[in-house]
Amino acid sequence: MPDAINPTLALLHRHRSIRRFTEEVVSDDDMTHAVAAAQMASTSSAVQAYCLIRVNDDAKRKRLVALTGDQIKVARCGAFLVVCGDTRRHRLVAERSGQPHHQNLESFMIATIDASLFAQNLAVAFESLGLGICYIGGLRNHPREVDELLGIPFGVFPLFGMCVGRPAEGPTARPRLPIDAVLFEESYPDDRTMLAALDRYDAHYVEYLKERDAKATPWSTRIAERFDHLEREELAVYYASKGASLT
Amino acid sequence: MPDAINPTLALLHRHRSIRRFTEEVVSDDDMTHAVAAAQMASTSSAVQAYCLIRVNDDAKRKRLVALTGDQIKVARCGAFLVVCGDTRRHRLVAERSGQPHHQNLESFMIATIDASLFAQNLAVAFESLGLGICYIGGLRNHPREVDELLGIPFGVFPLFGMCVGRPAEGPTARPRLPIDAVLFEESYPDDRTMLAALDRYDAHYVEYLKERDAKATPWSTRIAERFDHLEREELAVYYASKGASLT
Repeated sequence: MPDAINPTLALLHRHRSIRRFTEEVVSDDDMTHAVAAAQMASTSSAVQAYCLIRVNDDAKRKRLVALTGDQIKVARCGAFLVVCGDTRRHRLVAERSGQPHHQNLESFMIATIDASLFAQNLAVAFESLGLGICYIGGLRNHPREVDELLGIPFGVFPLFGMCVGRPAEGPTARPRLPIDAVLFEESYPDDRTMLAALDRYDAHYVEYLKERDAKATPWSTRIAERFDHLEREELAVYYASKGASLT
Repeated sequence: MPDAINPTLALLHRHRSIRRFTEEVVSDDDMTHAVAAAQMASTSSAVQAYCLIRVNDDAKRKRLVALTGDQIKVARCGAFLVVCGDTRRHRLVAERSGQPHHQNLESFMIATIDASLFAQNLAVAFESLGLGICYIGGLRNHPREVDELLGIPFGVFPLFGMCVGRPAEGPTARPRLPIDAVLFEESYPDDRTMLAALDRYDAHYVEYLKERDAKATPWSTRIAERFDHLEREELAVYYASKGASLT
């Protein structure tokens, strides 16, 4: 298996989302090294449309536990980070030079994609330092309250959180889609081919769950349930209120 | 400097976008290893809302050069990949089980973020194999034509391209924002503090450009120019036509 090819590929393969951490605080050195490396990620025309807020304060962390859906790990990790799309710097320099500042879906996507590339480099950097991470999509549950708690102004869009810390568990990795359901040659496959690949995946996924005495629900069933209703219905109105344009 | 700390941090620091490649084709082995490692990136509730289309065909590559804004490197690289947000698999399994499939901004963001985390892992994986990469945002210039060329169906959203190959140049890295303009403690800074950090960055940025005999335009000036007009104004209508909901 590719684990042996080089240390970085091996590191990527070892990734597991970590949900239980020791009490060790992430050091400023580790934080600085990881962020500096993360900033080297590609960014659209160097706009660097992202920022990171580290939350140490106990009371704020406790409030964030509640806001993210009672995720205790948000308080019990070595560092909690809020990853934001950031168009405010761009607004500030435009205002100062008296130029207009325009936004549309393209600029919102640039911020979202830039921030995500940065965040994934950050995750890899932390893991290279022996730390574990978990993304917290639940940060989008109550974004207005997150704004108020952290003084996040107009033009800055909280996207997700990240727990970081010394792992206190060693979970197994959930199997991913088979590569032929992800990487296509020349064109997108037809539905029949895709469904056949997903059937194989379901069988593999159920086998994995059974081995762990977990409820053997196929991936397909979980996915259909996940999208049979809407979640976070206020998000578009919220981001628009922060200066994003989704048109 | 952090370069010495571990091989992966050193690799992240060495990242440069590569725009000139040798004629060497990316091997299937390298492609498979990189994609398998990339798939280990975190994904929201395992939805894995992304896919990758590799374009080898010469005629298609030439057409993509034109569609991405005459970027010759799209034809002259060892592999050209189209990274898409993919909600089609989810639709297919929902349809098969007779369940409704709902979309809103949250599900579009999940696809965009999932695909970006995957893509950045992919970039890091390729670089660990000695290859270079360049993201191609120009893929969003004419997405309908990209769809037609690659048979990308309803529910699948082309987000950006990626050139991969053996580097035939060794560019220097553009300086990134100072870390105190990116990483904040407890709350977002005030405008004055931010502008002071950006002024320091501009001075550093101009110095870097002068050393390279490039036009010494401060970052702030370039940013104000970048956002004084809209780009890709059809994008929201286009993604909506593909089944995304931005509300």
